[in-house]
Amino acid sequence: MQGNSLFIGVDLGGTNVDMGIVNTSGQVCAKRIFPAEIEEGEKKLFDKIAFNVIELQKCLNGSDFIGGIGVGIAGLVNSKKGVLQKAFNLKGWLNVPVKDNLEKRTGYKVFVDNDANLAALGESMFGAGKGVENLLTITLGSGVGGGLILNGKIFHGKDDGAGEIGHTIIDRNGPLCTCGRKGCVEAFVGKHAIIRSVREKLDKYEDFILKKYDLNKLSPKDVSSAALMGDKLSIDVMTGAGEALGVGAANAANLLGLERIVIGGGLANAGDLILKPAREKLKEIALKPQSVEIVRAALGEDAGFIGAAALAIMKMKN
Amino acid sequence: MQGNSLFIGVDLGGTNVDMGIVNTSGQVCAKRIFPAEIEEGEKKLFDKIAFNVIELQKCLNGSDFIGGIGVGIAGLVNSKKGVLQKAFNLKGWLNVPVKDNLEKRTGYKVFVDNDANLAALGESMFGAGKGVENLLTITLGSGVGGGLILNGKIFHGKDDGAGEIGHTIIDRNGPLCTCGRKGCVEAFVGKHAIIRSVREKLDKYEDFILKKYDLNKLSPKDVSSAALMGDKLSIDVMTGAGEALGVGAANAANLLGLERIVIGGGLANAGDLILKPAREKLKEIALKPQSVEIVRAALGEDAGFIGAAALAIMKMKN
Repeated sequence: MQGNSLFIGVDLGGTNVDMGIVNTSGQVCAKRIFPAEIEEGEKKLFDKIAFNVIELQKCLNGSDFIGGIGVGIAGLVNSKKGVLQKAFNLKGWLNVPVKDNLEKRTGYKVFVDNDANLAALGESMFGAGKGVENLLTITLGSGVGGGLILNGKIFHGKDDGAGEIGHTIIDRNGPLCTCGRKGCVEAFVGKHAIIRSVREKLDKYEDFILKKYDLNKLSPKDVSSAALMGDKLSIDVMTGAGEALGVGAANAANLLGLERIVIGGGLANAGDLILKPAREKLKEIALKPQSVEIVRAALGEDAGFIGAAALAIMKMKN
Repeated sequence: MQGNSLFIGVDLGGTNVDMGIVNTSGQVCAKRIFPAEIEEGEKKLFDKIAFNVIELQKCLNGSDFIGGIGVGIAGLVNSKKGVLQKAFNLKGWLNVPVKDNLEKRTGYKVFVDNDANLAALGESMFGAGKGVENLLTITLGSGVGGGLILNGKIFHGKDDGAGEIGHTIIDRNGPLCTCGRKGCVEAFVGKHAIIRSVREKLDKYEDFILKKYDLNKLSPKDVSSAALMGDKLSIDVMTGAGEALGVGAANAANLLGLERIVIGGGLANAGDLILKPAREKLKEIALKPQSVEIVRAALGEDAGFIGAAALAIMKMKN
């Protein structure tokens, strides 16, 4: 392998930090996971990341070089300056110069972006979005995240504000979202929406797998798993979520002339149980139904740091 | 004025062709309007446009040069090739090489794009979108057109499919749109929606200006005019349309991190009667309400050919 052909990706989450060495084909050569321990402060966390950069390098033989480091964070990132302005999971972190801190500690070039943008970039370069110029990824977690690749590049919008597909409204008289708006995509597909939908359908089904669960502790993943096991209530919930997802995806496709919409996150584990109704809505609503498709994210559990490494790969190429 | 500093814009509509000479500050130096007479065929129309290019040049003193020609058409345009693939108003026109035809006849460089995109470009370069990198224009006519400027450039999307804000859904259980979908922005703000809304509110008001009109011949402009004259029913209709417009605008702002949304077309004549409710909805729904605003289009009746000239100006600069 040539020098400068390996990159490090860092997925900085509220609980864990996932890091890996990734080559320019998106293959993972080595990885490390360790607890973020946010409460111990920024300095300690940056020190730990720098330490793990060195540990990761030990996996390489001496002839390989690291071309750069990419970092993804769930939060509002100033991608030009590499500053984390505000994070959803990293309590008390405000205007943290992530790029400067890590460049000082590692000696490598560091690039930082929002994790939803990097999910889009990773899928675009190495996953389900390969070969596509105009792409939206939708990540179904507790909330509904979005990342846009337009004309082959991450699209940030003013002040890195783009990608909020979760808070576009598809039903202005619809259910209340956790954000306080009515009828957002997230109000149909987010964690709270899924659990609300389960509760609403309890009377409709006599027997269901989810009966065994404490509904107060239910996760979307439990519902998608039950659906995969054939639970009719859960399949019904997935169908409703998929349809709403399809409307949101079609709106984005019509506004942007998108070619592909990539769905990832826990709920995407339900596969066609959520993707099929989404595809049907997309075909119904898209103005160019033959030009756009919904596919499942391809990068799997390492998607976070692969997307982060993709950022470094892209930046160092230009 | 320096050589190469004047450009010709052509707004090719189903009824008329509007042409003008525009300088690099967006000022109109001369203009001509003539009937399109589509039924007489492409060749004749291109000949007439070429003839009027020469007539327009006569307005200049000999020392001025034309730097290029821009053409805007309401239809599906392949902007790279300058081919009109399909037009809504030009019946029977399919895959017409507009660029080639006009370059051959005039000797000038010709650039072609969709008129909604050029409305956005014109406002961005010379009108209400000046100084803004990320912008959506919404043109309220019979239908609802949209044009996107992203990172300072027209955003086309795959196969020039971007901009269809009119057919994004804000109320999935809402009224039927002329396109067959339910609850599109156009189903609240398009011509048919405005007239439907007037009919629905007839019983609510005892006296109203529109009583004098034949409702079958009503235009959105009649309703906006009546609203401006203080007609309560019409104001009510404008409020409803404005609110729906605001939801659509907020969705686009949230997805794209837009800085400004520029509203033009006949219904925008109602000014704050439609823009104020739109702004209120935008502030309510936008995730960054302080970063985005709704303003009225500034270019007026010559907007069509000014936007077309803007395309030529932009292309010749690069």
